[in-house]
Amino acid sequence: MTTQSDHPTQAAPVRGKFICLEGIEGVGKSTQVQALADHLSGCGIPVMTTREPGGTQISEAVRELLLSRDYPPMHEDTELLLVFAARAEHLQRRILPALEAGTWVISDRFTDATYAYQGGGRKIDVQRIAALENWVQGAFRPDLTLFLDASVATGLARAAKRGESDRFEQETLSFFERVRFIYHMRVQMNPGRYAVIDAEQSLEQVRADLIARVDALVNVGWKRGGA
Amino acid sequence: MTTQSDHPTQAAPVRGKFICLEGIEGVGKSTQVQALADHLSGCGIPVMTTREPGGTQISEAVRELLLSRDYPPMHEDTELLLVFAARAEHLQRRILPALEAGTWVISDRFTDATYAYQGGGRKIDVQRIAALENWVQGAFRPDLTLFLDASVATGLARAAKRGESDRFEQETLSFFERVRFIYHMRVQMNPGRYAVIDAEQSLEQVRADLIARVDALVNVGWKRGGA
Repeated sequence: MTTQSDHPTQAAPVRGKFICLEGIEGVGKSTQVQALADHLSGCGIPVMTTREPGGTQISEAVRELLLSRDYPPMHEDTELLLVFAARAEHLQRRILPALEAGTWVISDRFTDATYAYQGGGRKIDVQRIAALENWVQGAFRPDLTLFLDASVATGLARAAKRGESDRFEQETLSFFERVRFIYHMRVQMNPGRYAVIDAEQSLEQVRADLIARVDALVNVGWKRGGA
Repeated sequence: MTTQSDHPTQAAPVRGKFICLEGIEGVGKSTQVQALADHLSGCGIPVMTTREPGGTQISEAVRELLLSRDYPPMHEDTELLLVFAARAEHLQRRILPALEAGTWVISDRFTDATYAYQGGGRKIDVQRIAALENWVQGAFRPDLTLFLDASVATGLARAAKRGESDRFEQETLSFFERVRFIYHMRVQMNPGRYAVIDAEQSLEQVRADLIARVDALVNVGWKRGGA
């Protein structure tokens, strides 16, 4: 039986999927973002990689403000509004247009990082974060969030090898323990949207685990909806 | 009869008043901010002048992003969040501490400018602005907002004499007509908090009108509350 979805038209491509990688410093997110993009491309799926905060010219300029150690410590409200300002631009100018054009988008961090860092790390009331999330995103959420989990000791030891630390990497161990705790809490609250990947494993094994989870989404979101 | 307020203690100074000057480009706000500060200082009132967007190091860096013509046009949500990020820092780090220390604060623009420029000019839904105003400010509002009103033709002609225009000064006449309209609408909705000053008059007459309105506040807020 032939259904309409077997013949997508040029005018209305099947919407792309939005996949985010999350985790504390040093768990290998940026390496794995590229590995996943290569894998999806190999499957014939159009894919775009990006990161937060950042992803557009303005958002990268805001990222500089957020990570810089050249300013007096900013108020937590300022930090949260800057994070969401960068996100609004990224979402409206790059992520949504790509998804609507049928491109899959893989982002190194998204709003879960805000709950983890500004909510867990900085202890901002979760309701205040949710208010801005809804203000900026409406009902938009990632299709899949891959949480690369390693102990704070492992993550920070790996991150330290990268050289000079930014404003966040200067934080205390207990800050990162709270960040990691919130990631776990969010996975537990909504397990359908998340996958936890053990990032203490070798890069190769982490990559294999990520691809297995993404292939499940490909089977649902691409093979059914697309060609 | 002696009341407690006749003997303010060092530990709890009488809270300062927050006065804002508003209006379109070229109505003379920055000149008059300084004139008002000089007048209040002459009355023995501790006073601080500031401006928006700006007023702190981070907020001035955000101002650069907002006014710069070096970036692709930003989404209206991004602009609004950046305005409120700069304001959060300004409010928490400079305005509130000054007021709590008993200093009066005079600002060249505040949130009325956001309703006028982003609401009127950019046509952002007023409820979306109000949501961020409440998020950032809670119930905090200026004690007095002085709206310097001149025709768009007068304002822009004066602003043009200052040299190269920023990203907002590049806007159309109808943009500024909408900005001015929203200022008038806000005065009408809450006349007790606003004074409209005819900025088509000479600088000297504008100054005299402003001082007359501020002296009314001094009589209530300083002579009664303070020394």
